[in-house]
Amino acid sequence: MKKITILIHCKDQSGIIAAVTNFIASKNGNIVYIDQHVDQEQEVFFMRLEGEFEKASYDNSNFETLFQQEIALKFNMSWELYTAIYRPKMALFVSKYDHCLYDILGRYKSGELALDIPMIVSNHLDLKPIADSFDIPFFHVPVTKDTKPEAEAKHLELLSEHDIDFIVLARYMQIIPEGLIETYPHKIINIHHSFLPAFVGAKPYHSAYKRGVKIIGATSHYVTKELDAGPIIEQDVTRVSHTHSITDLVSKGRDLEKIVLSTGIKLHLDHKVMVFNNKTVIFS
Amino acid sequence: MKKITILIHCKDQSGIIAAVTNFIASKNGNIVYIDQHVDQEQEVFFMRLEGEFEKASYDNSNFETLFQQEIALKFNMSWELYTAIYRPKMALFVSKYDHCLYDILGRYKSGELALDIPMIVSNHLDLKPIADSFDIPFFHVPVTKDTKPEAEAKHLELLSEHDIDFIVLARYMQIIPEGLIETYPHKIINIHHSFLPAFVGAKPYHSAYKRGVKIIGATSHYVTKELDAGPIIEQDVTRVSHTHSITDLVSKGRDLEKIVLSTGIKLHLDHKVMVFNNKTVIFS
Amino acid sequence: MKKITILIHCKDQSGIIAAVTNFIASKNGNIVYIDQHVDQEQEVFFMRLEGEFEKASYDNSNFETLFQQEIALKFNMSWELYTAIYRPKMALFVSKYDHCLYDILGRYKSGELALDIPMIVSNHLDLKPIADSFDIPFFHVPVTKDTKPEAEAKHLELLSEHDIDFIVLARYMQIIPEGLIETYPHKIINIHHSFLPAFVGAKPYHSAYKRGVKIIGATSHYVTKELDAGPIIEQDVTRVSHTHSITDLVSKGRDLEKIVLSTGIKLHLDHKVMVFNNKTVIFS
Amino acid sequence: MKKITILIHCKDQSGIIAAVTNFIASKNGNIVYIDQHVDQEQEVFFMRLEGEFEKASYDNSNFETLFQQEIALKFNMSWELYTAIYRPKMALFVSKYDHCLYDILGRYKSGELALDIPMIVSNHLDLKPIADSFDIPFFHVPVTKDTKPEAEAKHLELLSEHDIDFIVLARYMQIIPEGLIETYPHKIINIHHSFLPAFVGAKPYHSAYKRGVKIIGATSHYVTKELDAGPIIEQDVTRVSHTHSITDLVSKGRDLEKIVLSTGIKLHLDHKVMVFNNKTVIFS
Repeated sequence: MKKITILIHCKDQSGIIAAVTNFIASKNGNIVYIDQHVDQEQEVFFMRLEGEFEKASYDNSNFETLFQQEIALKFNMSWELYTAIYRPKMALFVSKYDHCLYDILGRYKSGELALDIPMIVSNHLDLKPIADSFDIPFFHVPVTKDTKPEAEAKHLELLSEHDIDFIVLARYMQIIPEGLIETYPHKIINIHHSFLPAFVGAKPYHSAYKRGVKIIGATSHYVTKELDAGPIIEQDVTRVSHTHSITDLVSKGRDLEKIVLSTGIKLHLDHKVMVFNNKTVIFS
Repeated sequence: MKKITILIHCKDQSGIIAAVTNFIASKNGNIVYIDQHVDQEQEVFFMRLEGEFEKASYDNSNFETLFQQEIALKFNMSWELYTAIYRPKMALFVSKYDHCLYDILGRYKSGELALDIPMIVSNHLDLKPIADSFDIPFFHVPVTKDTKPEAEAKHLELLSEHDIDFIVLARYMQIIPEGLIETYPHKIINIHHSFLPAFVGAKPYHSAYKRGVKIIGATSHYVTKELDAGPIIEQDVTRVSHTHSITDLVSKGRDLEKIVLSTGIKLHLDHKVMVFNNKTVIFS
Repeated sequence: MKKITILIHCKDQSGIIAAVTNFIASKNGNIVYIDQHVDQEQEVFFMRLEGEFEKASYDNSNFETLFQQEIALKFNMSWELYTAIYRPKMALFVSKYDHCLYDILGRYKSGELALDIPMIVSNHLDLKPIADSFDIPFFHVPVTKDTKPEAEAKHLELLSEHDIDFIVLARYMQIIPEGLIETYPHKIINIHHSFLPAFVGAKPYHSAYKRGVKIIGATSHYVTKELDAGPIIEQDVTRVSHTHSITDLVSKGRDLEKIVLSTGIKLHLDHKVMVFNNKTVIFS
Repeated sequence: MKKITILIHCKDQSGIIAAVTNFIASKNGNIVYIDQHVDQEQEVFFMRLEGEFEKASYDNSNFETLFQQEIALKFNMSWELYTAIYRPKMALFVSKYDHCLYDILGRYKSGELALDIPMIVSNHLDLKPIADSFDIPFFHVPVTKDTKPEAEAKHLELLSEHDIDFIVLARYMQIIPEGLIETYPHKIINIHHSFLPAFVGAKPYHSAYKRGVKIIGATSHYVTKELDAGPIIEQDVTRVSHTHSITDLVSKGRDLEKIVLSTGIKLHLDHKVMVFNNKTVIFS
C-alpha cells in the first residue's frame, strides 16, 4: 500500500475539489482524509488530502507528472506531495535549558515521533550529557558577538552534512541570523515563552509578572526575520495569580513550553501546517 | 441569491465527494463551505456543505428531486437540505432558575439567534415576568405526580399549535416523558450541570463537592430516553478548589451552563450538528 | 450579627497576623475568613479578613477607632472596613453593544449582585429600551469631539447626584477623561476585548485575526490614565483557529467579555481586590 | 537558617491563628508563608505555615516539644512538621508505558524535584533501559494471578529496604493490594487517565470515545481501597472532537497524564496537600 499526503493552495475557484477528487479516483486511489479551507478575505483555497493506492498501481501511474499537467496547471496551484515512507531529519538547537530537550527526546525514544534526529547543536556544553545518554550526536558551536559569522557558517555546514529537513529551537536563546532563516524558510520552529504577540523578546515571564497578568502562555511558531513575529503554529495558556513569583511563572511555563513545542513539531511532521501570508492553516 | 445547507450521511464509499461537488457545479452552484468526516470505526461518511446559487437558476433546477435521483439513491444517503430563509421556531421550557433564560433572551433580542421563540413553558409562575418583559408568550403548565399525562398532552398541544421545530430545556428540572422525546427526536436540547458522564442525575454540584473534584463542568446534549445519556453537543469546564463551597460551585457553574447551552443552541440552529449512534459530529 | 470585611496593606513586618487576630478576638469577634499575601519583591503585606460579631457587642466596642490606635498606627497600615449591610451603587456606561449590558442586568434582576444600579449612561440612544425594560434610569449624554468637556461635566454631575460608588464600562467604547479617572481612582472597571497586554487599543479582534493567534481573550481591569494599562482584575481566553473569520472572533469574544466583566464586578463588589503598584491581589 | 513547614488540622475554634503565630514569634521565627482553610460544613480548620529561624536559636528552642505542649494539646490538633533539609525518597512503579517515566526522570535530572529515587519497580522488563540510562536501580517483580502475594511481599521488602517515603504509580496498570495501601496511607499517588469520577476503571479513553465527550482529562489522586476513588490532588482536561480516534485520545491524553502526575508529585513533595475525609486541601 502506498500512502501519500498532498498539500495544495491556490486562488479560490469553483471546481477544485471535484477535479482533485476525480483525479485521485481515476488513479484508483482511496481518499482517507480530505480537508479544505477557504480564506474568504484573501480568496485563497487550501487543501490537505491523504490517499492510499495499491503500490504497483501508484508506481505505474506517473501520478506526480500527470497531477501537475492535468490539475495543478489548470488551477495555478502550489502543491507538495509527501510519501509516508520518508522519515524527516530534524536538528535540535539548545542552550542551557533542558526541559524541552528531555520532552522531545523522550517522545523520540518512545516512537511517538516518526523522524530522525541526526544532530543536536548548542552554544554551551551543559546539555551534552543528555544528548549522550540518548545516543544523539552533539555539536558544540560557541556563539559570541565576534564569532557570529563563523558560527552561522558552521551551522549551515552541519545542517547540510546531515541532510536536515527542519530545525527546532528548543529554548536556544540566540537570535537566528537571516542567512539561516532564508535557507530554511518555514522550516525553523521556535518556542516562545509567552502568548504572542504579548511579551515579544527577552524575559517574557518577568514582563508578565510586572504587568500582573492572570494568564501566561507559550507559542510555537516558524522563525522569520522579524523577531517573534513568524506564523503561529500552536499556543496554550495557564492561569496564574498574585501568589506566583517570577520563579513560579518560569516553573509553570516550562510545562506549557514543552507541550506547545512538541505539539508544533508533530503538526509540522504530519504535514498539517500550511503557511500563507504569515499565518498558518492547521489541519486537524 | 439562494443559500442552502446540505447534511449527508451514508456508508463510506469512494467517489462521494466528487459526485456531490460535481452535481453542485453542474447546477451552477458555488460551494462556500464543505467539510466531511469519516467515522473509520463504523465506516460512515458525513458531509456538510453550504452552497450559493443564482435564485432563478436554483428555482428552475429541480435541485432536490435530481439530487435524490442522481446522487442520494446511488450512495444510499440520508440527507437534509435547509434554506437560509426559514427561521426555525424554538420553544423554551424553564422552571425557577433564570440565568439560562436571561442569556438566551438577551441573545435573541440582540439578533444573535436567527430564530423565533413563540412560547415559553414552565411548571412554575416565577419566570413569567421575564417572559413578559421580553414580550414572549408564557404558558404555565403545572406538573405534579398525578398530572404528568395531562401535562404532556398540554405540552404536545402547545408545541404543535406553535409549529415548534425544536425545544430547549433551560434548566427545566423535570424528566421529559417518552412521548415527547419520540415526537421531537434529537430536537430537544438539555443543559446538564456537570461534565457528563460524571454526576448523572440530580444535584451534580453537591456530588462534585463531595467527591472533591478540581474541575466542574456543564454539558449540552440532546434528550434521549436514558437520563443524561443523549448525544453530547458541547461541554466546558472551569477550575475549582477546596476553598469553594457548594454555593460557590453553583455560582461558577451558572456561567458555564448558560454559555454551553447557548453554544449548543447556535450549533443546532446552524445545522452544524449531525447525530449518529448516540454521538455527534460537530462541524465548525 | 454584625459582619465586617477588613482590607489591610502595609510594609511586611513580623507580628501583624497575630496582632490583628488577637485584636479581633479581644472584641469577641469570630474570624470567618482570613487570607494574606506577602509580595516578597516589594516587601508589602496584604490581608483580607471577614469577621462576625454580636451586634450590640460590636456597636459598643468602638472598633474602628481602637483598631486605628492600637493596630494600624503601630504597623503603619492602610486599611479599609466594609459592613455587609451597605449596598454599593454602580453606574453603567454603555454605547451600542448590548451583550455585557444584558448579562449584568440579568444577574442584577436574579439577585446575584448585591448592589443598586441607579443609572445607565450612554452616548447613544440604542440601548435605552433595554434600560427601560429593566426599569433602570437611562441618561443620554452625547460625546463629540467638541462636547467632551461638557460631557465629562455632565457625567460627574450625574455620578455625584446618584452617589455612585463605582463605574462599569460595559463596552463603552470612549476614552475616559482624566478628570473622571481621578475622581474615581480604581473605581472604574473596563472590559477590554483581548488578553492584555496583547492588542491594546482599538479593534483587537481585527489585530488578532491578522496576527493569526490560536487563542483570543478578554480582560477586565481598572481604568488608569494610560490606555488599557490599568491593574488587571480578571482574564479568560478561548481557542480559535484559521477557520474563524473576524465575525466569528467577535462572536466568540462576546461570551468571554460578558463573563470576564461580570466576574470582575463581583470580585470588586465583594472587596476581594486590592490594588498596589498597578497590579491586583485577588483574594478568593 | 532553619526552614520548617508545619501542617495543622483540628476542629475549628477561635484563637488558633493567633496562638500559632504568637508561638512562632515567641521563638524568634519569621513567618514566610501562612495559609489556612476552614471547612465550614465539617467545622475543620486547616493551616499550612512556613517559618524561618536562626539555626542555633531553633535548635535550642525545644520547638517541637513545646509546640505540642502549649499549642497542639490545647486545640487538640493533628500536626506535622517538616524540615527543608530532608530529601524524601520516592519509589516509581511502572509497567510498559514510558511517557510519565520520562517526564518524571527528566524533571529529576534537571533538579526540579528535590527528592531521591532509590528504585523503580516494574512487572515488565520493557522500561529497564530507561532506568539504566538515568542511573536508577530497576527491580523486576512479575505479577501474575498466582504470584500476587509473593509480589506484594517483595514490594514491601524493597520499599522498606530503601526507606521509601512515598510511591508514585506512573501508569503501573495493576491494582494495588490492600496491605500495601495500609502501609503507605495517602503516600501512594496514582495517575488515572480520565477526569474522575467519569470513566472509573480500565480503558477510559475507549469509554470516552464511545460516549462522545468533547473534553478528556487526567486525574492524580491518592490510592485508597476503593478503585479510582481516593482523594483527588490535581486534574486537567483538553478539548477533543469527533475527528479524534481512540488513538488520538490516547496521544493527547499522554500529555495531560504526565503534567497532571508531575504536578501531583510536586504538590505532595512540597507538603502542600492535606487529606481529610477523602478530599484534599491544596495550598498554593
